[in-house]
Amino acid sequence: MTKSLVISVDAMGGDHGPSVVVPGVAQAATEAGGLRFLLHGDETAIVAELAKHAGLKDRVEIRHADRVVAMDEKPAQALRRGKGTSMWAAIESVKGGEAAAAVSAGNTGALMAISLLILRMSVDVERPCLVVQWPGVSGVTTVLDVGANVDCDAERLVEFAILGEAFHRAAHGMAKPTVGLLNVGSEEMKGHEEVRQANAILRSGKFDIDYRGFVEGDELFQNKVDVVVTDGFTGNVALKTAEGAARYIGGELRGALTGSLAAKLGALLARSGLMKFREKLSPDAAAPLLGLNGVVVKSHGGASARDIAAAIRMAAKLAQSDFATEIERNMTRLTAAVAEQQPPAVDGAA
Amino acid sequence: MTKSLVISVDAMGGDHGPSVVVPGVAQAATEAGGLRFLLHGDETAIVAELAKHAGLKDRVEIRHADRVVAMDEKPAQALRRGKGTSMWAAIESVKGGEAAAAVSAGNTGALMAISLLILRMSVDVERPCLVVQWPGVSGVTTVLDVGANVDCDAERLVEFAILGEAFHRAAHGMAKPTVGLLNVGSEEMKGHEEVRQANAILRSGKFDIDYRGFVEGDELFQNKVDVVVTDGFTGNVALKTAEGAARYIGGELRGALTGSLAAKLGALLARSGLMKFREKLSPDAAAPLLGLNGVVVKSHGGASARDIAAAIRMAAKLAQSDFATEIERNMTRLTAAVAEQQPPAVDGAA
Repeated sequence: MTKSLVISVDAMGGDHGPSVVVPGVAQAATEAGGLRFLLHGDETAIVAELAKHAGLKDRVEIRHADRVVAMDEKPAQALRRGKGTSMWAAIESVKGGEAAAAVSAGNTGALMAISLLILRMSVDVERPCLVVQWPGVSGVTTVLDVGANVDCDAERLVEFAILGEAFHRAAHGMAKPTVGLLNVGSEEMKGHEEVRQANAILRSGKFDIDYRGFVEGDELFQNKVDVVVTDGFTGNVALKTAEGAARYIGGELRGALTGSLAAKLGALLARSGLMKFREKLSPDAAAPLLGLNGVVVKSHGGASARDIAAAIRMAAKLAQSDFATEIERNMTRLTAAVAEQQPPAVDGAA
Repeated sequence: MTKSLVISVDAMGGDHGPSVVVPGVAQAATEAGGLRFLLHGDETAIVAELAKHAGLKDRVEIRHADRVVAMDEKPAQALRRGKGTSMWAAIESVKGGEAAAAVSAGNTGALMAISLLILRMSVDVERPCLVVQWPGVSGVTTVLDVGANVDCDAERLVEFAILGEAFHRAAHGMAKPTVGLLNVGSEEMKGHEEVRQANAILRSGKFDIDYRGFVEGDELFQNKVDVVVTDGFTGNVALKTAEGAARYIGGELRGALTGSLAAKLGALLARSGLMKFREKLSPDAAAPLLGLNGVVVKSHGGASARDIAAAIRMAAKLAQSDFATEIERNMTRLTAAVAEQQPPAVDGAA
């Protein structure tokens, strides 16, 4: 089913470069027989790693790149001097059509800036949306934007809904994900202007989206809907607050380690659960940059081979899905819906 | 020290009315010898409860009220038909100067609306701020607004800082609480316009406030600053997200209850810690309505006698503190700071 789909990989991305990325590629290759790869980066280092993975060599094409975007490089700097880096080349292969998707565990800010410059946005959103797969009682909820777009009017929020819904279907193979707007209450009159307007536009029924209305912060953990939409400011605060809560509670449990043996064992158990929770909350394990003309999936700097393989899996899923065309379709509907809100100019002639 | 300070109490407030409120008053009375009370509500019911608390009778004055604001009554309805209720009368005693502060465990929306109508705001904020004492690794952080004022410009945020700082000093007897603004990053350029403007105004140094700049969601639990300021939308989402995280993690721990005896005991231990955490997060245990011309402290509907006593303690602390004059002083500075931002009208005459 994944018949010779080409994934462009930034082999130098992340804290460990080829020594982790190449094993990750190997793992993904074993899982999905049909995948092929373009590996961008230092040829010598990549060849050395490839030697450890028999059978991978004939499914990989190496594209040598002399330079690397540093993990601490400022996005603006990465844009100025990014040409010729493995990250830049990995994105360009998508632009050029050689690859169906790109994967990098490199500097997130630089990856967003370079992807934005090379691929451009397919929606009116200012920059690629950051998405998190929020852990809940009965699965994960896709939450966006969690930090990329801080100022959002109603239309932006509707675009996030369009992006998130298409992403969730592609990533989880769910026919009709349900969508909600994050708000301070469930009543129609609650919240600020932007949220109420976005709610009205989504309720208009002009979109091929199963919209369920408002959800509150605590409901993020209840999988009340599959996709929760919010502005990048609120989303980032919510995400960091949840991470902080997990860390705080973990610390409190650590206190129990000074208690009885029973308490020690129990607390250890509980803490391992908490660590999983915090891992799940990390937005970087395998996160797409949504809204670009092309599929880009990032993994975090500390990515393991498993994380890289997961990012490649997600990139392949998105590249093979219809989510680009679904987004296009709903974006056209949005333009129409917004146009309807402005009354047409009256023809002077009788 | 609390020499014959009079606290006005809505004896009918909360789910249990006098049967819980009067014992709460008795507890507070024992703790603080100097307190006296006006108890508003059904005289017969109050007298019956007072009979169980010898020595309280001579420190209490009963003000009979026929009617009660229902816990599920809409604020607008409470405003229309609130006159003659115990809640209304409790607030009016503050307005009239008979009492130094009012305490109610009644309907929060109604209490906010009635307090706003009778006492009016002392600041430009639209309605009384809701405050939560956020639990952290080294104490509590005062966080506001957590839901009352959803739309906030930079000036509102600065007013929250003024209110929260004065409250924290009064409530915790801290000479110079530190203040921060909730944002998506610590750099000056991060965040949306309102937050960056508020940051600039607070940095101007015109206020008698120890302002420390931006804090992020996860830092709420680290007591990085004593007071964290945010708009009612973000604050409400952050609070509910933290509550949701605690509930979710609690549920995961419940899973451990099916494990070994050690796990069971440990998980129970851990969960009791979580329950404490969630209790602490509850904004209603003893929460002031900030920004009014007068002290009003609410407790939650399910308040216990201990909660009522805590609310009375806080009401007394605020009434005896200088926080009203401190707020006034900083508000004058704000007006000046804002006026400076607009260039003065040029005099036409030479």
